Amino acid sequence: MSLVRVHNFSVSLDGFSAGADQSGEAPFGHAGQRLVRWFMGTRSFHVTTGQEGGSTGIDDAFARNWGPGIGVEIMGRNKFGPQRGPWTNEEWKGWWGEEPPFHTPVFVLTHHLRPSIEMKGGTTFRFTDARPAQALAAAKEAAGGLDVRIGGGPATVRQFLAADLIDHLHVVIVPIVLGRGERVWDGLEELEQRFDVEAVSTPSGVTHLTFTR
Amino acid sequence: MSLVRVHNFSVSLDGFSAGADQSGEAPFGHAGQRLVRWFMGTRSFHVTTGQEGGSTGIDDAFARNWGPGIGVEIMGRNKFGPQRGPWTNEEWKGWWGEEPPFHTPVFVLTHHLRPSIEMKGGTTFRFTDARPAQALAAAKEAAGGLDVRIGGGPATVRQFLAADLIDHLHVVIVPIVLGRGERVWDGLEELEQRFDVEAVSTPSGVTHLTFTR
Repeated sequence: MSLVRVHNFSVSLDGFSAGADQSGEAPFGHAGQRLVRWFMGTRSFHVTTGQEGGSTGIDDAFARNWGPGIGVEIMGRNKFGPQRGPWTNEEWKGWWGEEPPFHTPVFVLTHHLRPSIEMKGGTTFRFTDARPAQALAAAKEAAGGLDVRIGGGPATVRQFLAADLIDHLHVVIVPIVLGRGERVWDGLEELEQRFDVEAVSTPSGVTHLTFTR
Repeated sequence: MSLVRVHNFSVSLDGFSAGADQSGEAPFGHAGQRLVRWFMGTRSFHVTTGQEGGSTGIDDAFARNWGPGIGVEIMGRNKFGPQRGPWTNEEWKGWWGEEPPFHTPVFVLTHHLRPSIEMKGGTTFRFTDARPAQALAAAKEAAGGLDVRIGGGPATVRQFLAADLIDHLHVVIVPIVLGRGERVWDGLEELEQRFDVEAVSTPSGVTHLTFTR
């Protein structure tokens, strides 16, 4: 049975998983790299970005689960880019250059549709204004029996959790107080009761939580 | 040099360290025992409450640091009791029975003063409407060179953190989404930059964080 999975989803102590004031120069807003530093130290990240080295400990063990078995990613528009409202031009093709790391179809949830974009390496951005359950049905269709990853950002993960559509949630608690940005847990009271929860902290200072059902 | 310490301070994933709707029957409000269950399993808690048994692992190693070296506790009025506003009577002597576990002076921060209450076993509740820094100065005076513990609840811990008065903060991240109650991290953006932070998760599923300076 194909699963719906979230991986490497960093959250601050105060429940923010994106900073405020996202822009073209600041994909994570005022959070900068503080939420993703644990990930940037891993071999997985180094390989993806064409660098040597990187840690191969617990952080990397989690990080490398991101790719295998995934047939489609669904992401929110705020993960795709810093624009809001109607597209003023269609030049923007995401943050990831000509060959994004997804290598699958990527459904971008947005009220502002535009034509699909075929990138190098198998990534195709497809824009849809479907609700979570409908988007997921289409994603599963496109995934050919493989799993679907909900890629973020916070609003997208929150909506899929609220609709009880997620089977595996990997959250990384980063011990920082972000103060502002987008919260992920709002409206999800007693979420833990739907899952088995495990926790492990690592030398980088973060704590990996897995919610499994 | 005497330190100002916080111990065993449980916080949910969404940043709440007390539930909503505290009452005489529900000291933790709608959170019930969910935030303190890790603690109730420890030998420390069992000893305090006159029970046999209890775990002596990592949770207990942290829990037992609560008492040693402490000369005074400062707590907020909402930790002391469920009443709000002026005291309608002065019968209430805290949740802890005739012999509370503090065994030191306990300063209760409140705008509604009342006479001190001397309890069995060395605990004396003293009521003060001083601001955090002034209350701390008086507490240090009374502590006779020992450390001062900030006992909670969330508003009290938050105020002392905001005033940069805390030297050691032990927070326990409980992997639950509480949804409502009192948040501890509000207004403390970049708190982590003032401390060295360590994390360890335990088999009970919680993660202990220490903020040390």
